[in-house]
Amino acid sequence: MERKLALVASPTEAAQEAARRLHAVSQFVPFNQADTIIALGGDGFMLQTLHGMLENHRTLPIFGMNLGTVGFLMNEWRLDGLDQRLDRAKVYKVNPLRMHATTVSGEQVTLPAINEVSLLRETRQTAWLEVSVDNRVVIPELVCDGALVATPAGSTAYNLSAQGPILPLGCGLVALTPISPFRPRRWRGAILPERTKVKMRVVDPVKRPVSAVADQREVRDVASVEIAIDQAMPLTLLFDPEHTLDDRIAAEQFIA
Amino acid sequence: MERKLALVASPTEAAQEAARRLHAVSQFVPFNQADTIIALGGDGFMLQTLHGMLENHRTLPIFGMNLGTVGFLMNEWRLDGLDQRLDRAKVYKVNPLRMHATTVSGEQVTLPAINEVSLLRETRQTAWLEVSVDNRVVIPELVCDGALVATPAGSTAYNLSAQGPILPLGCGLVALTPISPFRPRRWRGAILPERTKVKMRVVDPVKRPVSAVADQREVRDVASVEIAIDQAMPLTLLFDPEHTLDDRIAAEQFIA
Amino acid sequence: MERKLALVASPTEAAQEAARRLHAVSQFVPFNQADTIIALGGDGFMLQTLHGMLENHRTLPIFGMNLGTVGFLMNEWRLDGLDQRLDRAKVYKVNPLRMHATTVSGEQVTLPAINEVSLLRETRQTAWLEVSVDNRVVIPELVCDGALVATPAGSTAYNLSAQGPILPLGCGLVALTPISPFRPRRWRGAILPERTKVKMRVVDPVKRPVSAVADQREVRDVASVEIAIDQAMPLTLLFDPEHTLDDRIAAEQFIA
Amino acid sequence: MERKLALVASPTEAAQEAARRLHAVSQFVPFNQADTIIALGGDGFMLQTLHGMLENHRTLPIFGMNLGTVGFLMNEWRLDGLDQRLDRAKVYKVNPLRMHATTVSGEQVTLPAINEVSLLRETRQTAWLEVSVDNRVVIPELVCDGALVATPAGSTAYNLSAQGPILPLGCGLVALTPISPFRPRRWRGAILPERTKVKMRVVDPVKRPVSAVADQREVRDVASVEIAIDQAMPLTLLFDPEHTLDDRIAAEQFIA
Repeated sequence: MERKLALVASPTEAAQEAARRLHAVSQFVPFNQADTIIALGGDGFMLQTLHGMLENHRTLPIFGMNLGTVGFLMNEWRLDGLDQRLDRAKVYKVNPLRMHATTVSGEQVTLPAINEVSLLRETRQTAWLEVSVDNRVVIPELVCDGALVATPAGSTAYNLSAQGPILPLGCGLVALTPISPFRPRRWRGAILPERTKVKMRVVDPVKRPVSAVADQREVRDVASVEIAIDQAMPLTLLFDPEHTLDDRIAAEQFIA
Repeated sequence: MERKLALVASPTEAAQEAARRLHAVSQFVPFNQADTIIALGGDGFMLQTLHGMLENHRTLPIFGMNLGTVGFLMNEWRLDGLDQRLDRAKVYKVNPLRMHATTVSGEQVTLPAINEVSLLRETRQTAWLEVSVDNRVVIPELVCDGALVATPAGSTAYNLSAQGPILPLGCGLVALTPISPFRPRRWRGAILPERTKVKMRVVDPVKRPVSAVADQREVRDVASVEIAIDQAMPLTLLFDPEHTLDDRIAAEQFIA
Repeated sequence: MERKLALVASPTEAAQEAARRLHAVSQFVPFNQADTIIALGGDGFMLQTLHGMLENHRTLPIFGMNLGTVGFLMNEWRLDGLDQRLDRAKVYKVNPLRMHATTVSGEQVTLPAINEVSLLRETRQTAWLEVSVDNRVVIPELVCDGALVATPAGSTAYNLSAQGPILPLGCGLVALTPISPFRPRRWRGAILPERTKVKMRVVDPVKRPVSAVADQREVRDVASVEIAIDQAMPLTLLFDPEHTLDDRIAAEQFIA
Repeated sequence: MERKLALVASPTEAAQEAARRLHAVSQFVPFNQADTIIALGGDGFMLQTLHGMLENHRTLPIFGMNLGTVGFLMNEWRLDGLDQRLDRAKVYKVNPLRMHATTVSGEQVTLPAINEVSLLRETRQTAWLEVSVDNRVVIPELVCDGALVATPAGSTAYNLSAQGPILPLGCGLVALTPISPFRPRRWRGAILPERTKVKMRVVDPVKRPVSAVADQREVRDVASVEIAIDQAMPLTLLFDPEHTLDDRIAAEQFIA
């Protein structure tokens, strides 16, 4: 059976040029006829593309090639041998988070997140959060800059900056990590099974406004945020076997 | 020589009631005739009163009595024996920070800070800061939620939440502490002589807006912030000898 | 079918007295005829009893009642209702670690560990360790006081003191945590799948002697230590459903 | 006035060869006639030389040139221009620590330390330490691997590995830092004025043996250890003005 590839590329010059060269040597179909996606760009573009698929409820396997800055989620860019690389590619399932946010004005917003859902205060007023795990209040009043829930894939991103732990891919866990906790002041966060539901209720959200961010998308002035792993729509990332995402995240743990 | 006391009180019921009772047993003069201030309230009110004095360029010795929540800067509330307590009080000099902020629109704002000057991103966009110490760029690009400079008096407040060190009062040092540093990702901050001038320049401040806060006062959308200890206007805090601010800060270091 | 219980008790007075009272109200059989063990004492005694079973290659389900100091692995002591408690008990499987140590003089020692295997320098000479994960050298030269591998059950013990992460029970992970790392100096350790084999080779073990400890048992002057989860001999811990080990370890994560 | 230089060199080949070449171009006198010392080697040799001077109660200014591994306390090695370098050298006073240790058998040992005094358990038995500051018990029972007191000069050495703070030279402070604290388990240590006296009493020192180390010299089986800055015998380090110890320690704070 023939593979049906669609090509998407970041608007940067480097990615557009690579797309032109790739069109000259391979066959591509429109996105809605494809069974596999080739993405050219950096991590930011990859996250955007994955988010686009989640929104359209159509999550195809995706093979990225790095023409951007970090490339943590990307394979090496090469013009040749794309078919053979796809034959040999190692498959990675990643379950995204789903955030249900309710704003102060009563609006409901649901957004997926591949890396993390984070809350941060918007003004000089410290955030006061009531943190619940599986409907049990575990911290009645977390006084802080904010807090986040990260997947293993996202554990080396914002979570690491906030001193959270690096989690191996596929470990079935998420990290709940406070940002500058003032009270309880030495709380370092928790590692939770991925079936766990985390809820953060903002105390006094008008005086103490808090913003919630699902990967790159922001909801201002939230009153409460529920975060859980969405098992229903796994993403499929393809990697050259010699250089998988798992290796890279493991490698991150031995950088110091 | 007779002491000339002025009385200031927080608007809370408890502080107002204490003020009424104190007026009944002691003599007070208006603020501008006083040589010593008695303040009733919590730490927030004390900081406000100290800030008021800094703005008026008239920094009188101040003896606080705690009728609020934390009371870290306050003595115990007692109706009786105020004169004797003032006779025995231990004197503490505290040098405030001075922040010079320039906003994106070119406005200049100068504000004092007794605890800390902090910068924090305003939106989902990570802050990019160029950090200089004594006019030398020490971190060309600190990618982070923010950063702060804290005095010893403030080292147990926001600085501690951001994992900064607790500094003993009068040690002549300040703490420069990053908030969720992403790059350089394991930078923990620095302890600097208090004569040091710290400058933080916001890179791309329109796309990546950053707010600066001097204690409780906020300047939105800053382009750069200079922070230095102001040796010219020391504050004078009075404490009962059995319970000084120094002891409390030392005690904080042995809480775990 | 009738349960066949054996009773073991710590030599402390409290545990011996409890054993006497329990003998008066329940039937017990010798250890080698039993299908379930009742243990009276503290965590130290529980670890000893579990180690005894691992040595005899006979790991029976065990229900502990706390008559000691910490009681993290223990249920509450109660004289009555033992049968009903065992009927309702929640079962926990815990896979121990297995340490294979080779000493400087060539001796081979194999020991199980329920909490952790740790290495620590014996003298003023800093330990130099070559750390391998699944036969790949990940840190060629860890200059440190030592390092440890902890199970989830042990993650709140020594591992936490060394700033390692708390792992939820049954997560299938272990923590590899350095103790006072000098080079690479900001390495914080790694979280690894429990199928991982960790090896630590001591560099220059005569000049720089290192001791290895499997829970409470120590091997002096090791040249190399291999550590892996032993899937072949799971331990079975029984807990009152209202107070399981899992809850306690989860609760630990929200203490601050 | 003519300078009277003595030359000391590490036994390594590189240092000995450098010494030969230096003898060919400069005049040197015996140690006991000298007013300034030139030291060739690495940091370890420098510490040894400084310790030798402290023991002989004759602390001459010392200019080190790096022919070893780290060279944190050393200037760059150059054959030429030694006189001019000494003329321009920046002078640094460093106050050493003094450790008074009492062993289990009652022996008294007094040793100086330029970097740190540290205590570490000798066996699998956790150390129990009673920590006093200025004769006041601040932590009645520190259950840990050990603890240390570091000078600013030593704050980037062992202290940093144990997660202690980096202190600027000449700040008049020392760092008291726990090593793997188990109870109180999240205690991070304290920064203390250098006039402070720290005492650590070992609880149950026969069952729980602890070793004390002053820089590189070890006292086994201590019962108690007192640590204080010795103001009476400052060391004098000489540095090329373009590359002082202060700069290096400041620079350490901006490595991440």
